[in-house]
Amino acid sequence: MATSDTLQRLEATIAARRNADPDNSYVAKLHARGLNKIAQKLGEEATETVIAALAEDRAALVGEAADLLFHLLVLLGAKDIPLTDVLAELDRREGVSGIAEKAARNS
Amino acid sequence: MATSDTLQRLEATIAARRNADPDNSYVAKLHARGLNKIAQKLGEEATETVIAALAEDRAALVGEAADLLFHLLVLLGAKDIPLTDVLAELDRREGVSGIAEKAARNS
Amino acid sequence: MATSDTLQRLEATIAARRNADPDNSYVAKLHARGLNKIAQKLGEEATETVIAALAEDRAALVGEAADLLFHLLVLLGAKDIPLTDVLAELDRREGVSGIAEKAARNS
Amino acid sequence: MATSDTLQRLEATIAARRNADPDNSYVAKLHARGLNKIAQKLGEEATETVIAALAEDRAALVGEAADLLFHLLVLLGAKDIPLTDVLAELDRREGVSGIAEKAARNS
Repeated sequence: MATSDTLQRLEATIAARRNADPDNSYVAKLHARGLNKIAQKLGEEATETVIAALAEDRAALVGEAADLLFHLLVLLGAKDIPLTDVLAELDRREGVSGIAEKAARNS
Repeated sequence: MATSDTLQRLEATIAARRNADPDNSYVAKLHARGLNKIAQKLGEEATETVIAALAEDRAALVGEAADLLFHLLVLLGAKDIPLTDVLAELDRREGVSGIAEKAARNS
Repeated sequence: MATSDTLQRLEATIAARRNADPDNSYVAKLHARGLNKIAQKLGEEATETVIAALAEDRAALVGEAADLLFHLLVLLGAKDIPLTDVLAELDRREGVSGIAEKAARNS
Repeated sequence: MATSDTLQRLEATIAARRNADPDNSYVAKLHARGLNKIAQKLGEEATETVIAALAEDRAALVGEAADLLFHLLVLLGAKDIPLTDVLAELDRREGVSGIAEKAARNS
């Protein structure tokens, strides 16, 4: 199914628009405002995701989670980190029995 | 490549561990503590992602972004929202020229 | 010195404006949008405070800390919690050797 | 009433403990871990304040707001910003009809 490639496709779209005219592209506008602004947007979308989850508003949570993923890809792109690096890290944790490792890291 | 399925695989792993023994599973422990705690963890990981991005610490940013994705999947799972719903929302926005729509929504 | 009363005065101002015309008052506008929106603003201001601190921008940090305090007072007001209740809690912790208690709570 | 001086007293306590033994003082421990960790704690407390507000848990909100104020004072102290500078900024805004100015800044 197509959706498994959604994030990779979105990552490519974001990369392509990074140098577009900030008047025509939200991604270009964010980049023009700098890394602090991009990071701030990620923080805002996370807060909105938290609130949508607690508000029991399913449609809002889907929308905010989409916003959060979108801005995470913009932030990773701004730092030249490919999404595959993050997915590889998740695979690696899973490989070493990820949840157990996570618990171990936290204790 | 395998990583394109990482998130779907992780989503299945999280779903499988939800009802495990909280002493043995981080996912089960989070679920036992409730939705507020899961949402709180998402907020914490977002803050850590922001800080890693500003700290110019590439490895930390990869790790925090992985933590953020992991806890987003836990939160979506707790609300019975499949990741594909969120990806479909991203596809939909892309389909209607997503960035423009995003800009329009914000103005 | 006058500043020691700043927060109490600001709290009173916020309470007085809560029922003003949302077109003329930022506080009234926030209240009209509801508790979720007020909470979201608090989260946003905290993210901006974090970023200003890491950005080594002293003036920005003073401004963001002011924004954070302002929105905390709006949130407390929306929940009918007087600032003195929060200050009394801080006094109470101090009284039982606050920092030690905080450390104890976290361990 | 004593509480109007609570924050100034707490600020002095925090400053005094900054160079204490990290094994005995939570403030010293935070400082030993660095500015990023202090900023992270502020972000975490803000998320917890948001969640307590939405959870309709009055006692939790009082406690989280106290935590947020405490960690804001630690962060300001770490950046050598006196609380009076932040209060003076709030006074200044109030003086120029603060809420209106805030609205103006945002538009």
